Amino acid sequence: MAVQKPSIPKGTRDFGQKEMARRNYIFDTIRSVFRTYGYQQIETPAMENLSTLLGKYGEEGDKLLFRILNSGDAFAGVDFSKPLPSQVCEKGLRYDLTVPFARYVVQHQNDISFPFKRYQIQPVWRADRPQKGRYREFYQCDVDVIGSRSQLNELELVQMVDAVFGKLGVRVAVKINNRKVLTGFAEIAQAPDKVVDITVAIDKLDKIGLEKVEEEMVEKGISADGITVIREILSLQGGFSEKLAAMKALFNGGSASGVVSETGLLGLQEVEELFGFIQAAGVSCPVELDLSLARGLNYYTGAIFEVKALDWEIGSICGGGRYDNLTGIFGLPGLSGVGISFGADRIYDVLDGLNLFPASLEQATTLLFAVMGADEMRYVLPLAKALRLSGVPVEIYPEPAKLRKQFEYAEKRSIPFISINGSEEIAAGTVNVKNLVSGEQKAFTIEDMEGLLQFIR
Amino acid sequence: MAVQKPSIPKGTRDFGQKEMARRNYIFDTIRSVFRTYGYQQIETPAMENLSTLLGKYGEEGDKLLFRILNSGDAFAGVDFSKPLPSQVCEKGLRYDLTVPFARYVVQHQNDISFPFKRYQIQPVWRADRPQKGRYREFYQCDVDVIGSRSQLNELELVQMVDAVFGKLGVRVAVKINNRKVLTGFAEIAQAPDKVVDITVAIDKLDKIGLEKVEEEMVEKGISADGITVIREILSLQGGFSEKLAAMKALFNGGSASGVVSETGLLGLQEVEELFGFIQAAGVSCPVELDLSLARGLNYYTGAIFEVKALDWEIGSICGGGRYDNLTGIFGLPGLSGVGISFGADRIYDVLDGLNLFPASLEQATTLLFAVMGADEMRYVLPLAKALRLSGVPVEIYPEPAKLRKQFEYAEKRSIPFISINGSEEIAAGTVNVKNLVSGEQKAFTIEDMEGLLQFIR
Repeated sequence: MAVQKPSIPKGTRDFGQKEMARRNYIFDTIRSVFRTYGYQQIETPAMENLSTLLGKYGEEGDKLLFRILNSGDAFAGVDFSKPLPSQVCEKGLRYDLTVPFARYVVQHQNDISFPFKRYQIQPVWRADRPQKGRYREFYQCDVDVIGSRSQLNELELVQMVDAVFGKLGVRVAVKINNRKVLTGFAEIAQAPDKVVDITVAIDKLDKIGLEKVEEEMVEKGISADGITVIREILSLQGGFSEKLAAMKALFNGGSASGVVSETGLLGLQEVEELFGFIQAAGVSCPVELDLSLARGLNYYTGAIFEVKALDWEIGSICGGGRYDNLTGIFGLPGLSGVGISFGADRIYDVLDGLNLFPASLEQATTLLFAVMGADEMRYVLPLAKALRLSGVPVEIYPEPAKLRKQFEYAEKRSIPFISINGSEEIAAGTVNVKNLVSGEQKAFTIEDMEGLLQFIR
Repeated sequence: MAVQKPSIPKGTRDFGQKEMARRNYIFDTIRSVFRTYGYQQIETPAMENLSTLLGKYGEEGDKLLFRILNSGDAFAGVDFSKPLPSQVCEKGLRYDLTVPFARYVVQHQNDISFPFKRYQIQPVWRADRPQKGRYREFYQCDVDVIGSRSQLNELELVQMVDAVFGKLGVRVAVKINNRKVLTGFAEIAQAPDKVVDITVAIDKLDKIGLEKVEEEMVEKGISADGITVIREILSLQGGFSEKLAAMKALFNGGSASGVVSETGLLGLQEVEELFGFIQAAGVSCPVELDLSLARGLNYYTGAIFEVKALDWEIGSICGGGRYDNLTGIFGLPGLSGVGISFGADRIYDVLDGLNLFPASLEQATTLLFAVMGADEMRYVLPLAKALRLSGVPVEIYPEPAKLRKQFEYAEKRSIPFISINGSEEIAAGTVNVKNLVSGEQKAFTIEDMEGLLQFIR
């Protein structure tokens, strides 16, 4: 067989031992928090039927699906005058965790106890052009509850975010908005189809100023009367409660248009309730109402979330919101859900950038037994076994080799303790252990496992 | 959008919360053992270049690869007079973890400290015809060390098997053979290309008897002299050391053919050394030499392993062996490795069949706070928070609902404790907790978290 220079498809990655230890640290931390809130894990197949995936991510998304060639003779009986991909591919790779989750809920609805609290940590695949920080295979980590309209769920998501980043040592801020409030803005501006444009305008105020924002609104086709209302929205002042009161007045017919927005009022009620819950429960990280937050508007129907790291520039590291009809596309209408997705790659970069990964992650193995011959190897076998039974990661160098080589191995693997034993130790029934960091060296009798354990822990 | 009846591709599975808890229990147990032996996790991409995969699994294997249609316009510039799959697909889904591991070692050889001890737990995909117990997507769990010829590695694999199944509570037997011994048999039978046939014959002796075995050997084209030698092998008697001595004599020219097999003698030396190690280290489960064990012969060059559950009929639940040239196909010859693969699905079936999954796996959540109104919900928020901080999985029923409904939810989710608090408890500053299994009920002051924790733990 010809020798091949090995490589992996562009946009994909190998994760080595150090990266895996760090990724597992992130996922284990997230999992441990999810667990205390009663969320449980599910997994769905990497392959879904294309009928499940197509049309769920827009035209652009359909193009980014990885399609799997039918097995067997995929091209048998194909009509070459018609588009081929749909004839030779019935399956595609998971593009996100949301659509498979919706499919799962509908498919297993009779086995599920609602409210259904699930999390899912699996890779997804997108045929995006690879670039720095954007991969064709990456993990998503989604937590959702479906089948409950209570905003206690929103609160718990905020609490989980707070707990996860507290454990990871990352200072974050949670930004919250509400889709119904944004709809309200568009309604009182008498431009109900311009929700996105208006939200973008609100977002740009700080950067480009009121005049430029208004110019943009004119370009987007918003009427002069509409712009007057938007000016009222943009000039909202004060803290949380002042703003809330002012918005309530606007939605109650107090704006220049005089239009009443029931949806906007409902949104404000939700915002008020959620912030009330947050205050009652006590959350460590700052939580703020951000009226410019939009995130996949067409999808969300209530609360919208975003989490930013305060000490590292990277965009949002979590995002999500409430959706009222996720499962409708699969024939189960009326189920409301809310969820958040943790961006594993970005969280990794934040922890790496801020040097927040525990140093202990580098130390996979605690103690290396060096080996100079067959007798010494046999001598340490029961010792290694006893230490492993106590949960201590231990390695025996697998063959007699120069000590320098064995020390090098310990160093490269960041193993902090080495034990070198020869015929003297065997005769005396002792074990020599050296701390490679401090240089401290101690001898223990083979009966004194406790002493040895204390020394290396 | 038209309503679709949702389904998943045949041969794939959704894993629900109960199955995931059980699968995680298996993987976590395996991982915890691997860890104490200094093995560390890596992950490789789901997609590999087809050039990496093709030709590694035989002609049949090539057919079973799932191919991924090139992204963009896959059919642009295609020559329809030539085979299409190779023109429109450059990538395929991982078929096993072994080939990607070999590719990984070669690709990252300069960053790896040898001996390289890695494990990998990831799904693989095969376009096999789905049937009971055979899926198109399933997890493999491989543990390998590469870059060391020492049989200490073989010992440690046996110890890990012993520790894993000890922790899982499954009684197993480890069967060991050696490829060089099998080669030796074929050499002294003067049929060096008939290793597989001879091994199959040895395996069938108990089932079909000596006469039938010999008939089969004739059919396979083994000479009369060869059959005389095979008869000598089949009549090997006695325990481990007697058999070993008898085989040594045969390989030393003592068989009817008089042929000396250096390879066979080397194999016996390896067998003797490994069983010596096993005795010195002490292994709880039975370990036996099984001369009929073959498993993917062409692949292995030394020790061959298989693990069987003693109390459940299911075939082997682990298998592996030593290979001397895994990385040669990718241009890095001379690296010897040895590894074992744990069959997650079968291990699951054994634990399920023998009722060995801990009952605690069903209990994701320990305590449910029932909720009758907004005040009660706010009242329990700090309590739930404190319990979660102590690591106790707690849920608050998300909205006021009939108590019967909330009890049903607790029952369906196997939540063992429920806490129902009303205006009286709020006034008194107490928490009512009921054990739904025993019926026992207790009240605690909200300051007495310790008492509450003791009651529910």
